[in-house]
Amino acid sequence: MYQSFDEAKVPAASGDRVKALVRELKARRLKGFLVPHSDQHQNEFLPPSEERLAWLTGFTGSAGVAIVTDKGSALFVDGRYILQAPKQVDTDIFEVLQVPEAKPSSWLKETLVRGNAVGYDPALHTIKEIDRLTKTLSAEGIRLTPVPENPIDKLWEKERPRPPMAGIFHHSIEFSGKSAAEKIAQVQETLKEDGQDAVLLTAPDSICWLFNIRGGDIKHTPVALAFTIVPKEGRPTLFIDPAKVGENMRGTLQSITDIAKPDELDDALKALAEQKAKVRLDPDSAAMRFAQALEVDGVKYVAGNDPCTLPKATKTKAEIAGARAAHLRDGAAMVRFLAWLDEIGETGRVDEVSAAMKLEDFRRQSGQLKDISFDTISASGPHGAVVHYRPTHASKRVLDKNTLYLIDSGGQYADGTTDVTRTVAVGKPTAEMKRRYSLVLRAHIGIATARFPKGTRGQDLDPFARRPLWDAGIDFDHGTGHGVGSYLSVHEGPQRLSRLGSEVLEPGMILSNEPGYYREGQYGIRLENLILVTPLTKIEGGEREMMGFETLTLVPFDRRLIDPKQFQPWELAWLNAYHARVRREIEPLIVSDDRPWLRHATQKIG
Amino acid sequence: MYQSFDEAKVPAASGDRVKALVRELKARRLKGFLVPHSDQHQNEFLPPSEERLAWLTGFTGSAGVAIVTDKGSALFVDGRYILQAPKQVDTDIFEVLQVPEAKPSSWLKETLVRGNAVGYDPALHTIKEIDRLTKTLSAEGIRLTPVPENPIDKLWEKERPRPPMAGIFHHSIEFSGKSAAEKIAQVQETLKEDGQDAVLLTAPDSICWLFNIRGGDIKHTPVALAFTIVPKEGRPTLFIDPAKVGENMRGTLQSITDIAKPDELDDALKALAEQKAKVRLDPDSAAMRFAQALEVDGVKYVAGNDPCTLPKATKTKAEIAGARAAHLRDGAAMVRFLAWLDEIGETGRVDEVSAAMKLEDFRRQSGQLKDISFDTISASGPHGAVVHYRPTHASKRVLDKNTLYLIDSGGQYADGTTDVTRTVAVGKPTAEMKRRYSLVLRAHIGIATARFPKGTRGQDLDPFARRPLWDAGIDFDHGTGHGVGSYLSVHEGPQRLSRLGSEVLEPGMILSNEPGYYREGQYGIRLENLILVTPLTKIEGGEREMMGFETLTLVPFDRRLIDPKQFQPWELAWLNAYHARVRREIEPLIVSDDRPWLRHATQKIG
Repeated sequence: MYQSFDEAKVPAASGDRVKALVRELKARRLKGFLVPHSDQHQNEFLPPSEERLAWLTGFTGSAGVAIVTDKGSALFVDGRYILQAPKQVDTDIFEVLQVPEAKPSSWLKETLVRGNAVGYDPALHTIKEIDRLTKTLSAEGIRLTPVPENPIDKLWEKERPRPPMAGIFHHSIEFSGKSAAEKIAQVQETLKEDGQDAVLLTAPDSICWLFNIRGGDIKHTPVALAFTIVPKEGRPTLFIDPAKVGENMRGTLQSITDIAKPDELDDALKALAEQKAKVRLDPDSAAMRFAQALEVDGVKYVAGNDPCTLPKATKTKAEIAGARAAHLRDGAAMVRFLAWLDEIGETGRVDEVSAAMKLEDFRRQSGQLKDISFDTISASGPHGAVVHYRPTHASKRVLDKNTLYLIDSGGQYADGTTDVTRTVAVGKPTAEMKRRYSLVLRAHIGIATARFPKGTRGQDLDPFARRPLWDAGIDFDHGTGHGVGSYLSVHEGPQRLSRLGSEVLEPGMILSNEPGYYREGQYGIRLENLILVTPLTKIEGGEREMMGFETLTLVPFDRRLIDPKQFQPWELAWLNAYHARVRREIEPLIVSDDRPWLRHATQKIG
Repeated sequence: MYQSFDEAKVPAASGDRVKALVRELKARRLKGFLVPHSDQHQNEFLPPSEERLAWLTGFTGSAGVAIVTDKGSALFVDGRYILQAPKQVDTDIFEVLQVPEAKPSSWLKETLVRGNAVGYDPALHTIKEIDRLTKTLSAEGIRLTPVPENPIDKLWEKERPRPPMAGIFHHSIEFSGKSAAEKIAQVQETLKEDGQDAVLLTAPDSICWLFNIRGGDIKHTPVALAFTIVPKEGRPTLFIDPAKVGENMRGTLQSITDIAKPDELDDALKALAEQKAKVRLDPDSAAMRFAQALEVDGVKYVAGNDPCTLPKATKTKAEIAGARAAHLRDGAAMVRFLAWLDEIGETGRVDEVSAAMKLEDFRRQSGQLKDISFDTISASGPHGAVVHYRPTHASKRVLDKNTLYLIDSGGQYADGTTDVTRTVAVGKPTAEMKRRYSLVLRAHIGIATARFPKGTRGQDLDPFARRPLWDAGIDFDHGTGHGVGSYLSVHEGPQRLSRLGSEVLEPGMILSNEPGYYREGQYGIRLENLILVTPLTKIEGGEREMMGFETLTLVPFDRRLIDPKQFQPWELAWLNAYHARVRREIEPLIVSDDRPWLRHATQKIG
C-alpha cells in the first residue's frame, strides 16, 4: 500500500463531544481532564484507535495535550503546530497555546482553585510526567486523580477504530546479528548487576528488538504493540494479543518466552508486587498505570532506564552491514529520483504529491522495500520552511520554477531503516539561496568530519553544525540529529545530536546529520545523511584514540547550489571525496540512462 | 607582602590526632566523622583557622574530604592531588582514594554496618551535599548525624590560628558602577518576583558585591567573611565581626544596612522561622546548618540560587571599563616580564620562584597592584604538565634550555581582576612542541572568534576549543574557562566554558579562555586570555543577532612556537589582528628599552 495524501479527517462536532466529556467529569466529581496525544506505549506515531485527542479536538499533529474543564478548555501544542492547530480546532472551545512558553500546569493553576480535582488516564502519561505535575499542582492544593476507565473511550465507543492486529514475523539473525536468547541473557545480566528481580518493558521497539520479531501495528514503523516482563532468571513473558501470533511464530517464540494475553499483565504485576519483587520500570517511558499496579503496601517499582535501549542503539556487525546495504539500495533510488526530477521538475507537471509517489516508486522497484519509514516531507518553495510539512491533495503545490524543493523521506528494508533529505534547485536559484545552501552544507560537513574521544555526548558535537551558521547570523530551531533504528523506528533514542543530547555516543550508533535553514514564506533547506559512530582509532601523531562518523547515505548534493568560494579547503576535500564515493558505489546499481546524470552530479567542485 | 614560596607546614603527629578524634567520636556514640576542606562560606581558599583537614591529615590541597572511623580512615582527593596527597599524609592511617572513581558514600557503606551513625559538622557541608549523602546512606541503614560542636575544634583549640580579622573598605562606585542601594533593590525585586520574604547570603563575594565593600580575610581574594539577611522590604542586616568595621566604614554602611555580630545570626534566623517567613537559601552554596536553623515545625527554607550571582557576573559599564584598564596595565607588566625572560631565561640564573617574584615586581611597579589574584603557577619543563603546580623553594626548577616554561598568574587591581597564562620557549623548542603549541593556540582562537545566539551555554562553546585537538588525537582534562570577578574572586560562577557549563552566557560576563596540552614528565602548554561576552549585534547578511567575545588580555603569544602552516587563514588573521592590537595598545605603556622586543614579538606571522 502506498502512502496516503488525503486530508486527515476532522470531526464535525467537537462542541458536543466536549460537552459530553464535561458531563462525564461531573459524574466523577472532577473539574478537569487531560487528553494527551499518547498511548500505553508512549508511541510517537499512534494507531487510529488511540487518536483520542484528534477525536475530541480535531487536531491531528503528532504531539499535544488538551485540558477540558467545566470553566473552559485549552490545547497545548509546540512550535511545529502553532499554525496548524487553530485551523483544525474550534477556537471558541479550545484556547490554543504554545509550549514551552505556556505550561499546562500554569494554566490549570490559573483556571482551577484549591480543592479541585483533575483527572487523567494513568495508561497515557509517563510516571515522570505525572510525578512532576502532581508536585506542581499539590503546592496549589489541586489534586491529580487517576481515572483508569478513560471517559473518552466510553463516549466514542461506537466510532472508535479497532486496535491494530497485524501479525508478527521473525526478524532473521542474518539481519539482527544477535539471537533473542543472547539479548534476553544480556538484559538479565543488567538486572543482576543492578540488583533487580525483573523489568517490565512497555516500549514496542524494545520488545521487538529483544525477541527478534517485527510487526505492523504502527504506520511505517514495523513494531507490534505488546508488553514484556523479563525476570532476572528464567523465561520472560510476552503479553500480546493472540491474533497477532501465527502458528509458526508461536512455535519459534515459545522456545524462548512464555506468551500471555495483554489483559493478564495486571495480575502478573500484582503477583510480583505481592512477592515484594524489585521490578524495574523506566519513569521516562513507562505509563503511570504500571507504577500504580506495582505499588503494594508502600513498596514501589524501582526506577531504571529501559535496559534494551542502549544495546539496541549500538548496532551489531550484521546490523551495520545491513545498514550499508540498505543505503546503497536507497541511494540508487534517490539518484534515479533526482535524475528524473532534473528532467521533468521545471515543466510544471510535477507536484509535491506526485514527486513523493515517484520516489516511493523508485524505492519499491528495488523489490526489497517493506514500507517507507515515515510520511514523506515533499515541500516546494515556502512549504520547505514548514519543518514538518506533509503534503496532501488539498495543500500540494506544483514545483514551480526558480525556487527550492525539499524532500525528506526514507525506507524500511529488512536490513535497515533509511532517512535522507535533499534540497534541490528547480530552475535558477538566487544568490541568497546558494549562500544559505552552502552554509547548511558546511554545517553538515562540520558533523560528518568530527573526531571525538570516549565519553563525548551528542550535545558536544551539535555546535559543530551551528558554527558556520552562527558566524553568518543564522540558525535552525531543531536538533542536528536523531538516533535511527535497524528496521525499527526512524526516531530511536537515546543518542541524539542536540543541545539536549546528554547521552554518550558509542561506536555502532546510527544518527541523522540534518542541519537546516528556514526562511518563512520563501523556502527551506535541509541536508540529511545518516551517519554511523566508528570505533576508537589511533590518530597519526596523536595520543588519545578518537571515534568519528562513517556517512551511510549515498546521494549527491546539488552542485547548482554550492558556492565553492564559501568553503574551507578541508570542507571541499570532504565534499569531493564524498561525491567520488557516491559515484563509485551507486553507478553500478543504476541503469545506464541515469549514469550521465550521476557523473555530472558528482563532478569535482572548486 | 609578596607571595610566599615556603613549603606548607605538615603536622608531625597525625596519628595522635586521629586517635584523639576517635575517642571524641566514641563519647558521642558516633562510628565515624567527616572532615572536609571547607568553611561556613564554602570558600575555595580557606583562612588558616579553617584548615581542619590539613591539621588532621597533613594534606594541604585545595579540595578533599577525610573520613575517620574506628575501623580505619580514608582521604578522598581529586586527580589534581592524587600524587601529592600520599606524600603528605600517613598512609598507614589514611587510605588515599581518588574521586569521582571512589566515592565517600560507597566507602562508608563498605566500612560501616546498618545502625551505625556518622557525624558531620553542619557548618561545613552544603545542603545539597548532605541531602544526597543522607539519601544514599539511609538506604543502607546508616545515619548521618549533625555535630554542631566540631570535635576537631576542641582538639586543636590551643594551636588553632586565629580567624582572620582584616578591616573592610569601600569599593568605589567609580569601579562598581552601581550603588549598594540599587543592588539591594535588585535583590529585593527578585525576592518579590519569587514570592519570598527574605534571603540569607553566605557567600563572601556576594556580600562584598552587594554592599560595595572589600576585605582581606582570604589570601589573594579581597573579601570579608560575613553573612547577610536581605528582607524583601526594608533594611538588610550584615552579620560581621565588629573588629573588621572601622568607624568611617560603619557610618557608610549604616546608611544602607543594619550591622550585627555573627553570633546573632542564629537568633535572627530562628525569629524568621518562627514568623513562618519564606527564607531563600541556595542549597548548592549554603551550609546545612542554616537549613537546620530555619526549620521550625516542619516548615523549611525555600530553595533558590543566590540572587547576587547573576547580577554580579554580568558586569556593569564601569566594571567593563575597569577590566579593560586593568588589562592594559597588567599586559604591560607581562610584556616587560616576557622581554626580561627572553634576555635572561637561557642563562640558568632564573628559577621558577625568582621568575614568579620578578613578574610580581613588574605588576607592583604599576603602583596599582592590590595583590596578586592567586599563587603563581610558574612551571619549567615537566612541572608544566602538573596543571595546578605551585613552586616552592624545595620544588623549584631552574629554567633549563630547550624546554617550555609555563606561567599562569594574575593581579588584583581596584578596577579589575586579571588571570593570564603564557607558555614560552626557553632555548630551542622541538618540532613536536611547536606542533602542540600551534594546536593549543588554534583551540584558543576557536573560542576567541566564536559568535553565538541568545541562550547559548558555556558547554555549547567548549567544543570549539577541543576540535583542533581532537582532530590531532589529543585533549586536555580541564574546562576551557571559568568566570572571573571584578576585583573579587578569580574563580567566580555561574558562567564557565566546560562540558558541565549549563549556565547561559550573558553580555558582560567575563571568562577565561585557557585550553591546554600536557605531556606528563616533559612539558605543559596553556594559553589563557580573559574574554568578555559582547552584546547581541547584527551580522551583515544575517537574520539573528549574535553575541561574541572581546579579548581583554593583551600579551603576545610566543612566535617561536607558532607554525603558521598548521593554521587556517582565518585563524592567522585573528592572530595577526590580535598582535597588532597588543602592539598598538601596550607600546605606549612600556619604557623604550622594551619596545623593540614588543615590536618583534608582534610581527605579522604567515
